[in-house]
Amino acid sequence: MIKAGVVGGTGYSGVELLRLLAQHPQVELAAVTSRPEAGRPVSAAYPSLRGCVEVAFSHPDKAPLAQCDVVFFATPNGVAMGEARRLLDAGARIVDISADFRLKDVAEWERWYKMKHAAPELLAEAVYGLCEVNREKIRDARLVANPGCYPTTVQLGLLPLVEAAAVDLDHLIADAKSGVSGAGRKLEQSLLYAEASENFAAYGVTGHRHWPEIRQGLAQLAGREIGLVFTPHLVPMVRGIHATLYGRIVKELDFQALYEKRYAKEPFVDVMPAGSHPDTRSTRAANVCRIAVHRPAEQGERADTLVVLSVIDNLMKGASGQAVQNMNLMFGLPEATGLEQVAVVP
Amino acid sequence: MIKAGVVGGTGYSGVELLRLLAQHPQVELAAVTSRPEAGRPVSAAYPSLRGCVEVAFSHPDKAPLAQCDVVFFATPNGVAMGEARRLLDAGARIVDISADFRLKDVAEWERWYKMKHAAPELLAEAVYGLCEVNREKIRDARLVANPGCYPTTVQLGLLPLVEAAAVDLDHLIADAKSGVSGAGRKLEQSLLYAEASENFAAYGVTGHRHWPEIRQGLAQLAGREIGLVFTPHLVPMVRGIHATLYGRIVKELDFQALYEKRYAKEPFVDVMPAGSHPDTRSTRAANVCRIAVHRPAEQGERADTLVVLSVIDNLMKGASGQAVQNMNLMFGLPEATGLEQVAVVP
Amino acid sequence: MIKAGVVGGTGYSGVELLRLLAQHPQVELAAVTSRPEAGRPVSAAYPSLRGCVEVAFSHPDKAPLAQCDVVFFATPNGVAMGEARRLLDAGARIVDISADFRLKDVAEWERWYKMKHAAPELLAEAVYGLCEVNREKIRDARLVANPGCYPTTVQLGLLPLVEAAAVDLDHLIADAKSGVSGAGRKLEQSLLYAEASENFAAYGVTGHRHWPEIRQGLAQLAGREIGLVFTPHLVPMVRGIHATLYGRIVKELDFQALYEKRYAKEPFVDVMPAGSHPDTRSTRAANVCRIAVHRPAEQGERADTLVVLSVIDNLMKGASGQAVQNMNLMFGLPEATGLEQVAVVP
Amino acid sequence: MIKAGVVGGTGYSGVELLRLLAQHPQVELAAVTSRPEAGRPVSAAYPSLRGCVEVAFSHPDKAPLAQCDVVFFATPNGVAMGEARRLLDAGARIVDISADFRLKDVAEWERWYKMKHAAPELLAEAVYGLCEVNREKIRDARLVANPGCYPTTVQLGLLPLVEAAAVDLDHLIADAKSGVSGAGRKLEQSLLYAEASENFAAYGVTGHRHWPEIRQGLAQLAGREIGLVFTPHLVPMVRGIHATLYGRIVKELDFQALYEKRYAKEPFVDVMPAGSHPDTRSTRAANVCRIAVHRPAEQGERADTLVVLSVIDNLMKGASGQAVQNMNLMFGLPEATGLEQVAVVP
Repeated sequence: MIKAGVVGGTGYSGVELLRLLAQHPQVELAAVTSRPEAGRPVSAAYPSLRGCVEVAFSHPDKAPLAQCDVVFFATPNGVAMGEARRLLDAGARIVDISADFRLKDVAEWERWYKMKHAAPELLAEAVYGLCEVNREKIRDARLVANPGCYPTTVQLGLLPLVEAAAVDLDHLIADAKSGVSGAGRKLEQSLLYAEASENFAAYGVTGHRHWPEIRQGLAQLAGREIGLVFTPHLVPMVRGIHATLYGRIVKELDFQALYEKRYAKEPFVDVMPAGSHPDTRSTRAANVCRIAVHRPAEQGERADTLVVLSVIDNLMKGASGQAVQNMNLMFGLPEATGLEQVAVVP
Repeated sequence: MIKAGVVGGTGYSGVELLRLLAQHPQVELAAVTSRPEAGRPVSAAYPSLRGCVEVAFSHPDKAPLAQCDVVFFATPNGVAMGEARRLLDAGARIVDISADFRLKDVAEWERWYKMKHAAPELLAEAVYGLCEVNREKIRDARLVANPGCYPTTVQLGLLPLVEAAAVDLDHLIADAKSGVSGAGRKLEQSLLYAEASENFAAYGVTGHRHWPEIRQGLAQLAGREIGLVFTPHLVPMVRGIHATLYGRIVKELDFQALYEKRYAKEPFVDVMPAGSHPDTRSTRAANVCRIAVHRPAEQGERADTLVVLSVIDNLMKGASGQAVQNMNLMFGLPEATGLEQVAVVP
Repeated sequence: MIKAGVVGGTGYSGVELLRLLAQHPQVELAAVTSRPEAGRPVSAAYPSLRGCVEVAFSHPDKAPLAQCDVVFFATPNGVAMGEARRLLDAGARIVDISADFRLKDVAEWERWYKMKHAAPELLAEAVYGLCEVNREKIRDARLVANPGCYPTTVQLGLLPLVEAAAVDLDHLIADAKSGVSGAGRKLEQSLLYAEASENFAAYGVTGHRHWPEIRQGLAQLAGREIGLVFTPHLVPMVRGIHATLYGRIVKELDFQALYEKRYAKEPFVDVMPAGSHPDTRSTRAANVCRIAVHRPAEQGERADTLVVLSVIDNLMKGASGQAVQNMNLMFGLPEATGLEQVAVVP
Repeated sequence: MIKAGVVGGTGYSGVELLRLLAQHPQVELAAVTSRPEAGRPVSAAYPSLRGCVEVAFSHPDKAPLAQCDVVFFATPNGVAMGEARRLLDAGARIVDISADFRLKDVAEWERWYKMKHAAPELLAEAVYGLCEVNREKIRDARLVANPGCYPTTVQLGLLPLVEAAAVDLDHLIADAKSGVSGAGRKLEQSLLYAEASENFAAYGVTGHRHWPEIRQGLAQLAGREIGLVFTPHLVPMVRGIHATLYGRIVKELDFQALYEKRYAKEPFVDVMPAGSHPDTRSTRAANVCRIAVHRPAEQGERADTLVVLSVIDNLMKGASGQAVQNMNLMFGLPEATGLEQVAVVP
């Protein structure tokens, strides 16, 4: 049994992680920490876990995290980087669901996250946990930076095109739409029900923290700088991300075949039949990314633009599901262990 | 008083039109027709109209439509084209909220709408009712083709750029998102609450009827063919359209100033301050299109792409509000008569 | 023109009030105050008001409230009671949309609102602004306590029965359901989209501040103490209250006729035909209460229970619409002035 | 392995059942039938099942249902009663998720369901599958009538009170609220997104088919006729039922203890701590009923009314989850096999 600790168990990626770990056959939940909730049963904060998670929140300073085999950080940005060194030194391995170790360039990280990085020396060691790209490195990693929700959706959607250099890499467009849980459990006005419901808007059009993360990932695949416009939008739903991706074709290929071949052995990427329109709910509560490739030829002969649709559940393949997938790789388990949940529809 | 008839008063653009006409100081509602509901009080079908609309539905064959000054068609496609000739001959003027008279090319109309056109001789006469483009022609029109909801949002959003030829007109992208009422009150599985709620997906990526309408409008403005990829999505909300528009800059301009100048005198187009993110709810139940222009420079020096955000209420500026605006123009009333409603927020 | 001031224009009843006042033909908006937003245009906080409300927020200490004819308080509880005396002395009249002057018994108010009342001497003077009960007193009132949203729905639903003493007054049950905007624009976790959406729960079952208000109102009508169980629930929607009211019949009457007669002359209470199920959306953005009376005889001969369904828009008849109705009465205007909006459906 | 057949796999209880059976360790899915979809892969109709359910729909006349160990009917009412005899004779056992075998009185069934019963001789044999009441009978049953969603919520909520005769059994009130999926995947106008969203209303107040089912169940427990007013409401959410139950106390007991004791050994009934407000989402996608008992003493000394809150996921404990629970009992498996899913929150 893997002894697992969860730092920050009260947010949405935290409760989702607890849901998964409670059902994971090889995991023993050793500690769940929360500063404000210390001493309170986890299931009092989340009645959905009554009967499934029996532990109480412990104070982060008193929790036996150093004795864990793996520690998950489901915390706001800026927490994991302060704790990582101590835990690694004690022999624990880390999956950081926050953004602390995702960017390789410290200066860029500090510019986007508006704080000083507390452990820049770990950035080189940290492995970016997009399993479909870095599977082998993840197996041996001590510190995995779990990808962001938008970056997972966009990178998995564009990856075959970028690897094949089949589209204009200077002018990629990612028009992305996310459910509200993607913003976390923050007390912000724009996240109130009476603000977000019956409403749709873009946000952060001039700059969003996931932009440098996506660009770094795609540039690495391309072996060169890439140009990307990334436009996030808030959708009045709780879970789900839909990325609509546009690329100008520069190399004619059988794009459907390209995608099917690239993802043929991937347990958690589903290339749908040509002409499909994947809906976010088909991934709800499941660790899967579904992708469809379109070439809208009916829209006229001038349409040399490829349209790729990529959907995930932001809390699963976009956060906690992917974190468990990373853990499985790190501990030599079959990659799908504890991740066989079928999507919940309707 | 203008004697107005409404054909097809049971759908969503119908009830919205009745809401507006009931409050319009210069309109007398002479007839509302519905084949299945003939004889039933309109307010029995729509309790929201109790005390405001006192008439009963009449059978279309018996309603005094020919004696009306103006007849609105809030019908499924294919109805207005069969009735228009008779009503025009009788001296009535027509605002067709359906799609029957929107395309100039009969063959293209028949290909997209999959039926034979019943009045091709009227297509040349019909005036496309986008007031911001065709205001003068509308004043004298006998037959106005009220624009579709997506086409209104996209054309108003791109119009200044196309007129100025400031972006690559061969590669425009319109990523559009609509609330569910845009599909009308049809009994289709995908429109059920348990299907559309907590879900987000694209649809019609390979071809949507609003694509030729948008292309026709923009090509007319540009004086040349244009290339456009149009990707509609269904948003889990009732009202609202958000178009996210992308164009590659080919001519450097002060884009904010371009938009502000173009729409300075328009009563129903609101160019928001630079950096704004218009939300659909700010237009709810109001006849207005709000637009913001972004140049996402923080996303890197390669980003020579302009991003325009354009929002409307699909039942108002995208259907019945615009229909009343057209009527006002046709009958020499101040354009905003009966359209001063303030958006309903929250 | 009535010079109106609005204290606290940033919450939901505030923005709704501004929507109404902007369209009111006899009102001039003299001041809108907000401490944190002072100096900022109102329409910057609420883009829905762009082009309709041109003033900026002013600081409450500097706003010319004392020179207003009427001042509305759309503030959290506890603000109006501190300002009322000064404004009344200066000659302004007050409509308080908050709860400060709703209860006649100071001790009871202080127990439920958990603060000391700052102006207990005004409680006797304050007129409870339920127009259907206190119309004549409201005309002459200097200080009107605008009823709460639940109390309006429940009292209008039960009023004819209580006046007729037709049901067991010791065992009334009000099972009430409210949209999320009823809780205001507060930053509370339970009001976040990801908490309130796709969810339904009761709250405050052991005690809610609207219970003493309802009980006071009904007891006054009955001329005796009444017994009431009041169970509020949170509905995943923005606007709307639905009260399902149960009373054990003690006097056989034609209940449909009783209601129709009682409300025959009321401009804003709509008794629907027998067998109706009023839906909240039929009141959306309109100042109306719709009521249906049921005696579920098919549910068996033992069913001597009457079921009354009562719905309003909590921000309109439950808050700002009723506030304007009160203002109209206070200033001798036709009661429906500026309140003719038709409900927005869908 | 249990060979299972599913008749009617395209509705909501069907897809939920397939989700559960796909994860059930002791079940082999032998056939899923659908007349209109015959030949099409199940996962083409429900992409959420891609990779999890590999079979295609078969035509009901050709499917090997008679060779199954158990056949589930997830069909509209009226189908199972026509097929049951043949399957039972062939040795299959049946769990009918529809309503065909729920009422013992044929005349009453025919009155409420408005059709002639095709197999009245099986009504006596059919066991009502409320496991918490009929566990032992279910083990040996050939034909189980799976309870309705409202009846499950209401009966589990009232059961301890009725068994103890602690409240006035002539005047029970069940004010129930259901998400939209409870109505099935029917193409009805009231179930459209643009009708059901941002709206709340009661329906069927004068009579609902679940009323006789609840009354029959409670009367059996009480050993006498009972009086019940049942008021269903439609909530703008997909899943979840919340019943707010009212009973006049006639026998003073420690009600919290009564409930805790009654359900102490029940794996799928969770009596929450005193003062709790169970929310429907805490049961989402999980086979559990959560209950809280309130005595609203703060609402005044006259309040001798008990308020019980009972919530389930209508597709799980209210339909397919309970069906699997019944199957587990029928085949001697541990009752929770394949039903350990943790509720999905948020």
